[in-house]
Amino acid sequence: MACCHYYGHQAGGDAAFAVDMSAITYGAGCLVEAGDHAQSLGMRRVALFTDERLAALEPVAIVKRSLQAAGLEVVVYDAVKVEPTDGSFLEAARFAREGKFDGFVSVGGGSVIDTCKAANLYSSYPAPLTDYVNAPIGAAKAVPGPLKPHIACPTTSGTGSECTGIAIFDFIERRVKTGIVSKRLRPNLALIDPTTTYTLPAAVVAASGFDVLSHALESFTALPYTRRTPADRPSLRPMSQGANPWSDIGCEKALQMTGRFLERAVQSADDHEARDGMMFAATLAGIAFGNAGVHLPHGMSYAVAGQVRDFCSHGYPQDEPMVPHGMSVIVNAPAVFRFTADACPERHLDAARWLGADVAGASLADAGEIVAQRLIALMQATGIPNGVGGVGYGADDVVSLAEGAWAQQRLVKNAPKAVSEADLAGLFRGAMRYW
Amino acid sequence: MACCHYYGHQAGGDAAFAVDMSAITYGAGCLVEAGDHAQSLGMRRVALFTDERLAALEPVAIVKRSLQAAGLEVVVYDAVKVEPTDGSFLEAARFAREGKFDGFVSVGGGSVIDTCKAANLYSSYPAPLTDYVNAPIGAAKAVPGPLKPHIACPTTSGTGSECTGIAIFDFIERRVKTGIVSKRLRPNLALIDPTTTYTLPAAVVAASGFDVLSHALESFTALPYTRRTPADRPSLRPMSQGANPWSDIGCEKALQMTGRFLERAVQSADDHEARDGMMFAATLAGIAFGNAGVHLPHGMSYAVAGQVRDFCSHGYPQDEPMVPHGMSVIVNAPAVFRFTADACPERHLDAARWLGADVAGASLADAGEIVAQRLIALMQATGIPNGVGGVGYGADDVVSLAEGAWAQQRLVKNAPKAVSEADLAGLFRGAMRYW
Repeated sequence: MACCHYYGHQAGGDAAFAVDMSAITYGAGCLVEAGDHAQSLGMRRVALFTDERLAALEPVAIVKRSLQAAGLEVVVYDAVKVEPTDGSFLEAARFAREGKFDGFVSVGGGSVIDTCKAANLYSSYPAPLTDYVNAPIGAAKAVPGPLKPHIACPTTSGTGSECTGIAIFDFIERRVKTGIVSKRLRPNLALIDPTTTYTLPAAVVAASGFDVLSHALESFTALPYTRRTPADRPSLRPMSQGANPWSDIGCEKALQMTGRFLERAVQSADDHEARDGMMFAATLAGIAFGNAGVHLPHGMSYAVAGQVRDFCSHGYPQDEPMVPHGMSVIVNAPAVFRFTADACPERHLDAARWLGADVAGASLADAGEIVAQRLIALMQATGIPNGVGGVGYGADDVVSLAEGAWAQQRLVKNAPKAVSEADLAGLFRGAMRYW
Repeated sequence: MACCHYYGHQAGGDAAFAVDMSAITYGAGCLVEAGDHAQSLGMRRVALFTDERLAALEPVAIVKRSLQAAGLEVVVYDAVKVEPTDGSFLEAARFAREGKFDGFVSVGGGSVIDTCKAANLYSSYPAPLTDYVNAPIGAAKAVPGPLKPHIACPTTSGTGSECTGIAIFDFIERRVKTGIVSKRLRPNLALIDPTTTYTLPAAVVAASGFDVLSHALESFTALPYTRRTPADRPSLRPMSQGANPWSDIGCEKALQMTGRFLERAVQSADDHEARDGMMFAATLAGIAFGNAGVHLPHGMSYAVAGQVRDFCSHGYPQDEPMVPHGMSVIVNAPAVFRFTADACPERHLDAARWLGADVAGASLADAGEIVAQRLIALMQATGIPNGVGGVGYGADDVVSLAEGAWAQQRLVKNAPKAVSEADLAGLFRGAMRYW
């Protein structure tokens, strides 16, 4: 707790922080346990969510066999859209409602797990889509009660969705990404098998790995919880409660592991130590950001992904333009951390060191540039496009991108310093090109 | 994950580990939130557990006022026995059964929180006491279903009971401490206010602080989960599952904080940074040991405490002989870690360094002695008695103590190397006197 002064009491700020997380089972080969855990959670008729590509692969087959061997009835839903939309959420919810399931199992990346959360929610408590969506885009109504049990089995080392109560989607008509946030959405169990990542394409390991990195770096540099205005009721303390001593611990380990393993995991599918390491880092970062919240790189990413014109990435579906989530986050990050460093320079230096930067002799004034340069080096080493310009945007898009990011007030307010819409425009200009 | 080889797959060993914990709210002054959290957990008629001394003090008054202000009916039970017994557990259960409560709140140290867990269990699922008690002393039956909601508010920085599914008591007729272990016993919420420790006597801070230290050190050096025989069903993986990459993270931080703050917290009640630090370390160590399990120092402590003759400690009730829990643990620890070091010497050296020992130039062969010397120095600096001899035992007691410890098979088996009853006798002989 070198950080104890950092969390000293602030007038008008919250005096306590909350820690809450999914149960986790982690280990090589643990997908075979799905049936036993599902049974112990009381499931009998299970909706198994996945996407079309994964439906033909081994992890889904293992989970399905395990569920059936435990005597459960299983119906597969493989129509999950990678980077889900309002339409794909609603379609999944309709499937869930009509199927009368008493439990959910998801096998896939963040898109699959998030879609499963939404299907569970809207089939358990039917409502117009916007009811539970974050304000100001939606009405941000509280989820009325507990959902049906959900076991989430991630197959990418990225989103941490298996540990969070967040479901993100593209709101097509508004041209923006947004989401639903509630502790009720947290899966009951995250069943995490790192061997599922051994066949991932390098581009997916890179994009999802930067999502991990940014979860940890954003949570670590988020507004301290002591500077957030308390909720009306303590039991309603938000998940995006700001940096705190608990989330700091997971961030530190996740940044150290990402610094050590990200490049190696991208470079070789056979480097199992590195791919295992990234999976565990993803879990730790997921727990941390589920208890602290991310800020500007993620807030800006929703505009970058939502306003995509014609960008496609290797390793992802090519049928329509898409900026993969982790990529849409990290292209903003160097510009953001140059900007936020003066709010908590020690933390930026610590993070840079954990990521592998040489900080010997660095002064606090160098902190932002040192983090930015380390991120840029990692981006270059792993084939990430050169900034927001690299995924198809130009100077003319800055106003629209800033407007899209500004709508993500939950995230903008979790930054360690005050941010205006004009600041966001400046950040997008700074993020256009790094090398 | 410098430890990845440490957790490499072992034939016949478990392939995965589980992570599970209570929700936590942590912060100075957060006891005022009790009523709101109780209400959100659905409580209306609450049993408020505490002990006679605490019943007159501010933390209990704050919690009671908060519960009442939220419109809840509150009945106080202040007959908790410090170091509870089978008799005191049964009396508390009778109170709980007759009071027809729909929720429980405990304010106190481990004795209070453990008694509340037992009262909740035996009033929810009445049964002979031994039914749920650990084998071989009890029948170790599974708890049949969920208990009523329980909010635990610790007032000592020690047991971590607020984060675990463990309740420990003295089984008087058998002259041994034993316990009940089930995930169902975990409180729904740990409400942790470090200011409650500002008025604790130094002797209580010392004894409970060594409990924290030993939770972390034992969990970190416990048998790796990869070397434990898997449970019959994955969903029944035990809480004492052995060291794992998740618990390691909490252990590291808890040991670093204990090394930095324990002496200061004992020396001055006004050193709030140190007392806050010990409370957070207790939380982290509680989470870690709730997911890894302790081993020999705790296993031996149950004999040391259970067979007490005439020892009394400052700061604790003087009406009958008692070795405070943390003291009964740490008097065994230097002898134990001299013995276990060869099973995982790197871990013993890491732990010694985190606790503040100078390990420059140390070889792996020195690891056990370096840990032992650091523990002895901390014991001397904080007024802990000189070994098992210092709490009233002599050479003639070794056989009986070893027999008592040998009964704690759950803990003996969690040691990093095979241990015989004769080894335990040797450890007690080695623990008799350190300086």
